[in-house]
Amino acid sequence: MAPTYKLYYFDAAGRGAIIRHLFAYGNQSFEDIRIPKDQWPEYKNKTPFGQLPVLEIDGQQVAQSRAIARYLAKKFNLVGKNDLEALKCDELIDTIEDFLQKGLKYFLENDPAQKEIHRKKFFEEDIPYYLEKFEAIVSKNGGYTVGSQLTWSDFQFAGTLAELEKHHAGLLKPYPALSGLIDKVSNLPSIKAWREKSEQKK
Amino acid sequence: MAPTYKLYYFDAAGRGAIIRHLFAYGNQSFEDIRIPKDQWPEYKNKTPFGQLPVLEIDGQQVAQSRAIARYLAKKFNLVGKNDLEALKCDELIDTIEDFLQKGLKYFLENDPAQKEIHRKKFFEEDIPYYLEKFEAIVSKNGGYTVGSQLTWSDFQFAGTLAELEKHHAGLLKPYPALSGLIDKVSNLPSIKAWREKSEQKK
Ligand SMILES: N[C@@H](CCC(=O)N[C@@H](CS)C(=O)NCC(=O)O)C(=O)O
Ligand SMILES: N[C@@H](CCC(=O)N[C@@H](CS)C(=O)NCC(=O)O)C(=O)O
Repeated sequence: MAPTYKLYYFDAAGRGAIIRHLFAYGNQSFEDIRIPKDQWPEYKNKTPFGQLPVLEIDGQQVAQSRAIARYLAKKFNLVGKNDLEALKCDELIDTIEDFLQKGLKYFLENDPAQKEIHRKKFFEEDIPYYLEKFEAIVSKNGGYTVGSQLTWSDFQFAGTLAELEKHHAGLLKPYPALSGLIDKVSNLPSIKAWREKSEQKK
Repeated sequence: MAPTYKLYYFDAAGRGAIIRHLFAYGNQSFEDIRIPKDQWPEYKNKTPFGQLPVLEIDGQQVAQSRAIARYLAKKFNLVGKNDLEALKCDELIDTIEDFLQKGLKYFLENDPAQKEIHRKKFFEEDIPYYLEKFEAIVSKNGGYTVGSQLTWSDFQFAGTLAELEKHHAGLLKPYPALSGLIDKVSNLPSIKAWREKSEQKK
């Protein structure tokens, strides 16, 4: 019997998106628990390491978005054809996390002078540096990040890059392969159905 | 036939340590290429994402220390007994990385006032918060981070925590299970032999 899954995250896409998308893709039901920000302080100390997302698998709590996503990706055959492709997925997942961290340095900075320094670096150096490399990889692989088939790395890229484009419309214009990847993932029948269902709930 | 492995890193432990230790544990020969700092600018642009470590597997370059380590851990049966233990390894690996990032915020800060703020937060909040949780986990598991057997998570914990203790002697005194884990890993016959061989080379 499949285990019972409860996902705890905030009422946002963020680091919960990949997990929700993998459940949708795998047609695996789960409880999508969204902690309101004002109730967070009371939950925080009940989590393994003070942060969300947390997945409860048959009552056992596990933290860390990418660890959880990799576990589900294995179940749903999204880790590539062999250990080398699984490694390439992991490499890209950690690289887009490094890229995200550079963005967060800018987004989360409060001091205006520092923020401007981080903004300039992120938009003028990091974005072109990483996105050109990502674009080349996805072009070479015929529209996928790894191999020539869908993996959880595609979900992570599509999610992270779509979020970036949402806040900075037009940013992905010079990167047709990356834009195509976002479209491909969001048009998967299972993802579309899940999105329509979640939008109805609101 | 086993592939040919070349590891590129700096002449330091850092993010290369886990990979070198896994090769030693698995009795797998590899070329341990250490880039001198003054030659780094010329190498940087030849790496997949501008950073080290990079592992070359039969000529194919792959970045990201934890991705590489996970790949080797699979080969050497260090990912736990089942998918749930593999997930627990991944959870802890990403959690000690989050902890390390908080330390790096302090170590890498140049502005003295900011550095003092980060220092205080790291030593007075983050260290006790995380180390108490890690100590409880390792105690509960009879001296291991996951399950009741050696995993690559033990290598990552031992490496990271030993580095911390090296710079701040006495810091691990209140955490006997974590200190014991460092000893256990560094006394594995394969690791001892490798360390003695590398020290002779210098
Ligand atoms: N490395 C962790 C990071 C988790 C994280 O940063 N969680 C944030 C939300 S995206 C959080 O819980 N923030 C609230 C807090 O830290 O109190 C992961 O990937 O799961
Ligand atoms: N997420 C990467 C981080 C790699 C990283 O930070 N590498 C540092 C050395 S530990 C580096 O290459 N620094 C030189 C540079 O960035 O130019 C990993 O885990 O491999």
